Amino acid sequence: MKLKNKSFKIGFGILSIITVAFFLIPFGNSEFQSDSELFSAFTALAANPKTHFIEMNASSLPNGQLAYQMISHKVDSGNGLTRDITVARYGENPTPSIPGPAIIINQGDEVFLKLVNKIGGDCVSVHVHGVHYSIGDDGTLASTNKVEDSCATIDSPKTYHWVAGKGTVGTWPYHDHTFGGETGAEDRGLFGVVIVDRPGTKAFIDGKMSWIPVKKIDKEYVLYMVKTSFWGLEIDNNKGGLQTPLWVNPTLLAKQNDEVRFHVVGLGSEFHTFHMHAHRWVDQGTTDVIDTKNIGPLARHVFVVKAGEAVGSGDWMYHCHVFNHMRAGMTGIFQVSAAGGPSIPGPSPLV
Amino acid sequence: MKLKNKSFKIGFGILSIITVAFFLIPFGNSEFQSDSELFSAFTALAANPKTHFIEMNASSLPNGQLAYQMISHKVDSGNGLTRDITVARYGENPTPSIPGPAIIINQGDEVFLKLVNKIGGDCVSVHVHGVHYSIGDDGTLASTNKVEDSCATIDSPKTYHWVAGKGTVGTWPYHDHTFGGETGAEDRGLFGVVIVDRPGTKAFIDGKMSWIPVKKIDKEYVLYMVKTSFWGLEIDNNKGGLQTPLWVNPTLLAKQNDEVRFHVVGLGSEFHTFHMHAHRWVDQGTTDVIDTKNIGPLARHVFVVKAGEAVGSGDWMYHCHVFNHMRAGMTGIFQVSAAGGPSIPGPSPLV
Amino acid sequence: MKLKNKSFKIGFGILSIITVAFFLIPFGNSEFQSDSELFSAFTALAANPKTHFIEMNASSLPNGQLAYQMISHKVDSGNGLTRDITVARYGENPTPSIPGPAIIINQGDEVFLKLVNKIGGDCVSVHVHGVHYSIGDDGTLASTNKVEDSCATIDSPKTYHWVAGKGTVGTWPYHDHTFGGETGAEDRGLFGVVIVDRPGTKAFIDGKMSWIPVKKIDKEYVLYMVKTSFWGLEIDNNKGGLQTPLWVNPTLLAKQNDEVRFHVVGLGSEFHTFHMHAHRWVDQGTTDVIDTKNIGPLARHVFVVKAGEAVGSGDWMYHCHVFNHMRAGMTGIFQVSAAGGPSIPGPSPLV
Repeated sequence: MKLKNKSFKIGFGILSIITVAFFLIPFGNSEFQSDSELFSAFTALAANPKTHFIEMNASSLPNGQLAYQMISHKVDSGNGLTRDITVARYGENPTPSIPGPAIIINQGDEVFLKLVNKIGGDCVSVHVHGVHYSIGDDGTLASTNKVEDSCATIDSPKTYHWVAGKGTVGTWPYHDHTFGGETGAEDRGLFGVVIVDRPGTKAFIDGKMSWIPVKKIDKEYVLYMVKTSFWGLEIDNNKGGLQTPLWVNPTLLAKQNDEVRFHVVGLGSEFHTFHMHAHRWVDQGTTDVIDTKNIGPLARHVFVVKAGEAVGSGDWMYHCHVFNHMRAGMTGIFQVSAAGGPSIPGPSPLV
Repeated sequence: MKLKNKSFKIGFGILSIITVAFFLIPFGNSEFQSDSELFSAFTALAANPKTHFIEMNASSLPNGQLAYQMISHKVDSGNGLTRDITVARYGENPTPSIPGPAIIINQGDEVFLKLVNKIGGDCVSVHVHGVHYSIGDDGTLASTNKVEDSCATIDSPKTYHWVAGKGTVGTWPYHDHTFGGETGAEDRGLFGVVIVDRPGTKAFIDGKMSWIPVKKIDKEYVLYMVKTSFWGLEIDNNKGGLQTPLWVNPTLLAKQNDEVRFHVVGLGSEFHTFHMHAHRWVDQGTTDVIDTKNIGPLARHVFVVKAGEAVGSGDWMYHCHVFNHMRAGMTGIFQVSAAGGPSIPGPSPLV
Repeated sequence: MKLKNKSFKIGFGILSIITVAFFLIPFGNSEFQSDSELFSAFTALAANPKTHFIEMNASSLPNGQLAYQMISHKVDSGNGLTRDITVARYGENPTPSIPGPAIIINQGDEVFLKLVNKIGGDCVSVHVHGVHYSIGDDGTLASTNKVEDSCATIDSPKTYHWVAGKGTVGTWPYHDHTFGGETGAEDRGLFGVVIVDRPGTKAFIDGKMSWIPVKKIDKEYVLYMVKTSFWGLEIDNNKGGLQTPLWVNPTLLAKQNDEVRFHVVGLGSEFHTFHMHAHRWVDQGTTDVIDTKNIGPLARHVFVVKAGEAVGSGDWMYHCHVFNHMRAGMTGIFQVSAAGGPSIPGPSPLV
């Protein structure tokens, strides 16, 4: 490298110190030091990439809504053995749910997702964000993608092939893109998330920026903001990643000082602002510390908080801060206590 | 620390230089060098933490709107002496105002805020963002927080206790959360800001990223974007931080080259884009330079500009760039001149 | 520089390494190393600043919409020679277009833009974001700017003088601000972009953050999101920067692995979320990798992708992800193929 700027050279010593000083402060060094290995994982693929064989239904609920339903999730680590993780991750006999099952994989993994149409009528699909796939697996109609109807009819399931290649870490929505036409029927309940797990999530805890490795995260909440409701799902990492559908405006339970991760996603035609009482967090990819975030349709916002940090236990509201949405009931409770426990689902259309 | 990545080691020398080069350029070094102490303040508490004893009314305005009113602000620096800063900060006999008084404190400070309900009827509250407090001081109803009605009735004031602990620097909204029900009456005028003062604000001045220390900021404008109006407040740091309510769509005055800070907050059900003519600034926590910013309800956007930088004096418009909002008059003037002077309030519901 | 913090000094050696490690990972070093000169350009003015003499019409289209039309663009590099680049950049006999012509300049350049009003009736203007100009060139009415009607009547053209001074790099909208009153007639088609070209755009390619120098960008698409349509323009850098109006919801063509840059801008009263299938990119000024971005009126979002990276050729949808906007047809195709070729315009009001 040739440095053309003379004054740059002269200032090097002192500026080096300043640069370090600047970044030293915002990033707490305790997490950082012990987790420097984390960063390489942003471009690294998993050491043991896996192939996931997943089967899901697209189903009708009693109230006319539609929902994805996990049927089977098997994993092949390339050693000739296939492990069935369906019960471990989704419980016994998983029902359809809104949001649909969270598909959690590592960078480097592949997914074969077989979608079975139990609704009938139109062709139903899974269009996924973020990961790699060929145009035939786009989850769109042939009239758009010029290749094939990338969806499942009542007679013919569709198997999608995704690759979580380099640079696909993150939380990404998936949703229907064909039922009733190219716009799809995401508005009727056909949505969920894929989490290509990342080395960690930046958090602002005890006044310091830190990286919270995924392995330290106790619980995760997926919250879709739709019209004037939250549709939730819990992932309990202390129970091996067991998922529980939480339905509408659930009460989210956490143990005091647990590190919990929120995956907030917008959907539909409304814009929202997600707010939670007495907690604050870092806006991913920035150094801005916030407690209220604009959420547009299909934009996603991921953050970690330490439950009850510096404020203690309590029934802390989370809600949309759009006034008309609040008035229409778009609110729930983040219940922090010494005991913690499983979150309490809200009303479900299954009943 | 153990470095596992061999190629990382090899590249260390040259990459160190590149890293420094990268951050040298975007951050102008003049501000930076003399203010490196600033950064430590992001996690540091104030050297002399203070306790603030504040009394505010929630009052009715002649037109039926509601507003907070500063009654008294006393400060105890822990030396046994309590100083009354009411007149210095809020002037003689402060009226109710929209937005309410800006409560400016340092990280490490504590606040005891006594709210007196002069409206009558429902229980009125102050729910604050960003700072630390216990669930009983949440400004919500017992039906939500399960502890107490955290609000003031006509007969019984409520005293809130806040702690601006580590990591609470920033501009944070406060607002009612109980009047007429859990949604509160923020829409009728009950809102303001708490500023936990920060070491400085990142600015993009003369083509360079700099940190502007708070002590250098000449004036500050609080602008709430509500439906199709701006509701403003001025803080003049050259007059000891004296606040003046500016009401609706004020004319903001600044002296050429003064460094002024804007605190823009959304409220209600509308989304806005804040724009100001002929100025640009850095989106906090990023290196993006913008002149138009999405503002959702209760999201806040803080930035510094040098008034008239490279464009000189003039009546520069600030306005919402949502077309229907502009058409409905959501606009004001940022008047930059050699003389400067106090900003000119817009129409007030007090008359 | 005096370092007051003792523990900072002690930790210097190890933290220096950590800092470098942190920034090494997210930023791919191949682009970075060869382009370190790029960064200085953020504050540097062009080596040979130019003066641009531009003449544009404001014209009426057959359907009643209004549009800017390039008439002439000449460049003086200060050597006494003036070069006419009209045909090279805008083609033979450029028609009016929506968006209007993209005015591409370098930092340090000056522009004299003469606007001729071919519409008649009210005074029509060009109000520009981002660059420097005096209040008389604000493109607003005298009733607002207190100086002059900064606009062109049928009898009297207006010449604007802009300076792309230090710190003005970026993509900035321009639009009418006087036709029919201070709000202007941007909603009828009078909008475009100025691009003050930057040293490069941060991209997330093959899992690495890189800086893509402008000279490497093959094609650029300007996409204005207005109500339920995209209004597009192509800039082909492999044809000397030739611009082609693409009108409504065009099919954007790119060659596999071409590096293409999108300039997405909002306009009007609606908020949008821009999404593109099977691609992801970095949110400028952050390290957040996204595929869906909130776009408010007059906010702009600029990003680079490698066409078909890791997903191959295909007809990939780009669309607004606001459900009602999708249903109303706010969608187009990003067609990636081995051959590439010129993009295919959508329906035009010219016919």
